[in-house]
Amino acid sequence: MNEPESSYEILEARFGQIGALGEAARVLTWDRSVNMPRKGARGRAEQLASLRRVVHEKTTDAAMPDLLDAAEDEVADDPWRAANLREMRRRWVHATALDGDLIAAMARADSECEMAWRGAREADDYETVKPYLQTVLDLVRRAGEARAEALGCSVHEALMDVYEPGARTRRIDALFDDIASFLPGFLDRVLQVQAGEPPPIPMEGPFPVEAQRALGERLMVQLGFDFEAGRLDVSLHPFCSGVPGDIRVTTRYDAADFTQSVMAVLHETGHALYNAGLPPEWRRQPVGSARGMATHESQSLLIEMQACRSAEFIGFLAPMVREAFGGTGPAWSADNLCRHYRRVARSLIRVDADEVTYPAHVILRYRLERSLIDGSLSLDDLPEAWADGLDALLGIRPPDDASGCLQDIHWYSGTWGYFPTYALGALAAAQLFEAAKAASPGIPGALSRGDFAPLLAWLRESVHRKGSMPASSDDLLREATGSPLGTGSFKRHLETRYLSDR
Amino acid sequence: MNEPESSYEILEARFGQIGALGEAARVLTWDRSVNMPRKGARGRAEQLASLRRVVHEKTTDAAMPDLLDAAEDEVADDPWRAANLREMRRRWVHATALDGDLIAAMARADSECEMAWRGAREADDYETVKPYLQTVLDLVRRAGEARAEALGCSVHEALMDVYEPGARTRRIDALFDDIASFLPGFLDRVLQVQAGEPPPIPMEGPFPVEAQRALGERLMVQLGFDFEAGRLDVSLHPFCSGVPGDIRVTTRYDAADFTQSVMAVLHETGHALYNAGLPPEWRRQPVGSARGMATHESQSLLIEMQACRSAEFIGFLAPMVREAFGGTGPAWSADNLCRHYRRVARSLIRVDADEVTYPAHVILRYRLERSLIDGSLSLDDLPEAWADGLDALLGIRPPDDASGCLQDIHWYSGTWGYFPTYALGALAAAQLFEAAKAASPGIPGALSRGDFAPLLAWLRESVHRKGSMPASSDDLLREATGSPLGTGSFKRHLETRYLSDR
Repeated sequence: MNEPESSYEILEARFGQIGALGEAARVLTWDRSVNMPRKGARGRAEQLASLRRVVHEKTTDAAMPDLLDAAEDEVADDPWRAANLREMRRRWVHATALDGDLIAAMARADSECEMAWRGAREADDYETVKPYLQTVLDLVRRAGEARAEALGCSVHEALMDVYEPGARTRRIDALFDDIASFLPGFLDRVLQVQAGEPPPIPMEGPFPVEAQRALGERLMVQLGFDFEAGRLDVSLHPFCSGVPGDIRVTTRYDAADFTQSVMAVLHETGHALYNAGLPPEWRRQPVGSARGMATHESQSLLIEMQACRSAEFIGFLAPMVREAFGGTGPAWSADNLCRHYRRVARSLIRVDADEVTYPAHVILRYRLERSLIDGSLSLDDLPEAWADGLDALLGIRPPDDASGCLQDIHWYSGTWGYFPTYALGALAAAQLFEAAKAASPGIPGALSRGDFAPLLAWLRESVHRKGSMPASSDDLLREATGSPLGTGSFKRHLETRYLSDR
Repeated sequence: MNEPESSYEILEARFGQIGALGEAARVLTWDRSVNMPRKGARGRAEQLASLRRVVHEKTTDAAMPDLLDAAEDEVADDPWRAANLREMRRRWVHATALDGDLIAAMARADSECEMAWRGAREADDYETVKPYLQTVLDLVRRAGEARAEALGCSVHEALMDVYEPGARTRRIDALFDDIASFLPGFLDRVLQVQAGEPPPIPMEGPFPVEAQRALGERLMVQLGFDFEAGRLDVSLHPFCSGVPGDIRVTTRYDAADFTQSVMAVLHETGHALYNAGLPPEWRRQPVGSARGMATHESQSLLIEMQACRSAEFIGFLAPMVREAFGGTGPAWSADNLCRHYRRVARSLIRVDADEVTYPAHVILRYRLERSLIDGSLSLDDLPEAWADGLDALLGIRPPDDASGCLQDIHWYSGTWGYFPTYALGALAAAQLFEAAKAASPGIPGALSRGDFAPLLAWLRESVHRKGSMPASSDDLLREATGSPLGTGSFKRHLETRYLSDR
């Protein structure tokens, strides 16, 4: 590298190093879930904490404000550099908002509460974890207040901003209220239609793990995943991590049911394609990152829910599945596989929910989270509020807290403000897929041949290659689809798939 | 952590963080050899370079010299803290000896030369890699000169000091000259004895990789390896990495020959037991590290060569091997397995050499390296000098450079001063094993039952738990065996095993 000259170049060099350290942390985190033996946990926590500390030190370096200011004029006529500088400032604002003592206190509280939660969920004992959660909540609120002051927004917005830049309560309320009012009536109609049809015929196992793995890999190649630039491994919960050139997808296998691992692989490959398609010339720079967690989730849901549960793709998938497991007869038909993959039910657990009821689970958490943050709901009243909220949205009440407010790790591990991105991603996925098909009408036909190239080409150009060039996911959607995020495409998608398209 | 108060406490906190970043780099390096897909190489190099840069920045921080000086009085009456401070200073001296431009130039030259070497070895074409190697050598010499000035020793000593603190040419010359004069006559006698015996009977394969892996894991458990605190994986070359609580051993498998993978696993487990046994209360501190590469190699060779090629252990191993591969008949007897594992030959390739001829390969490299560093040998004359040197030591000449001066990666990747530690480790292994048996006479009997506990107990107390508390490997050996490193135990060991004990 030549000697950097301008303030902007100095910033690029610094953020490049910060980016490389962030990449290192991703490898360590992946390894923790995939390889690390039990007794490595404590050491790994230290390693990751040290990396985080260095990233924080470098991001909050005393020279930063002057460099950021001085660079403004230097980038004025280069939109990518200007966007990069904007994202650098965003990171600097977030990093400087919290002082070191608060960060350390949060790390400690999160880790203690998460540990208590593991036991509490197992024992269905919300009361024992409640005091830990109160400590976490108090600290999260303090952090949110500090961030809110720096960003000029509300506390809950500031917490969401970490995952979804520019998230605004008014916008999200409008979207979620619309879905919440649409859902109960729609769900009744879907369940009525479904009740009039034969239930899916069970496919007979066993489904050997090795055959599931081989099928998953074949599907990934079909989607455009490059195994010279990535891997598929096993972990307790499926996820996608890694860096361009080295994307790490994981799934889990159940020898009694292949349908979950197949869809998990497709879902995570959606994330993987996004990571792999980010603008290579901006690698390790803030503007080269994914636009936010809602956009990231839109890419996995677009692949899994929109493309891969389409009748076209399932027509392609069914013979592959038959071949993988030696299945024959009507249970292995494309129609029956479709019925398996489109079964709708009022259920208690978010991660097991179908695409129709899933947003209800998220909306519930979003509303409760906001009330907990602004103090209008106390942790004492959380279990009851959870049951009431689920009842209002889905017409069911959890029989215990383990299948209620103890089911998700997020709050207990200090992750507040994340939940809405799941449902925002589902809305965005529908909107993007609709736009993709409008721009490239051959997409459904191609999917019926297992050909993702036309869809991927559109996503590469309209989403992946843009990195964080658009200032928000709404800006990205505006450029890609002509409108900011709405509910129309999602509702049309559900109505077509679950009512008309039977 | 409480606010650090004394200079020493500040240093401990800083080196603790440096240590954690070093641990992170170890995980990334392991992953590169075991998991990383081809296209991840470039990104991984950036990640590791960034980590190295941060470690260097933190070690050479401007406040360091004052902190190191101020801490001297604070630790005067605590030998462990005093040793830790001594090791901190050692790291600081090495880190400050080289300027950033030289480090960057070396990284570039090493990487270019290593790349050129891969092609040159394949094509047996020393001439094409020679100019790259000249650049590496020139930079290594400059680095050695800078280190030598900081350490007050010769250039070659300064290069060795990175791997073997306190290495002195006069001492190593004396040890190696002694071995070099012993070896030719001894080798003649061994080969004569061997020629009068039946050759080892081949064991019939195949030896399924899965059975080899299971056998390797059983043996590791037998040695005391804890699979809740470590793993066994596959890589191109066997190695041991990882950190306490998370030790990573690798090997490779050849379905036509199980003997190599078994011994590789035992060798690497020797390294693993050392890493796992380092003083836990000093984890991530300089004094908690292994004493040096000679001592590290002594631990792997003690397990592999001294303990696991003993008649006692092979008597225990033979039935396990028969069971693993379903072998029967005389080819699978303990005697025949012993003959396989003790076959001696004049051979060209260091990594394939037996324990008798191995030191000759190392002594050759040590002598050539010194002459290249001091300029008395030019790279033009290296191939001829290599052939002459091997001829003098082993009575054979390589037919080409691929099996001569192109065989090892070390020099081409910038690793100068490392070679001697292999042979010093072999000498130390013999000396330690002799002392262990004197202190704990039940060790051989225990090995015949596959029981490593008495040996491990002695190693834990005499070597592992000492970390870098002794200032050098000679100090460590003095404490553990009563003498600094010598050749007597090694020669006695070879004479007993290869001449008397037949």
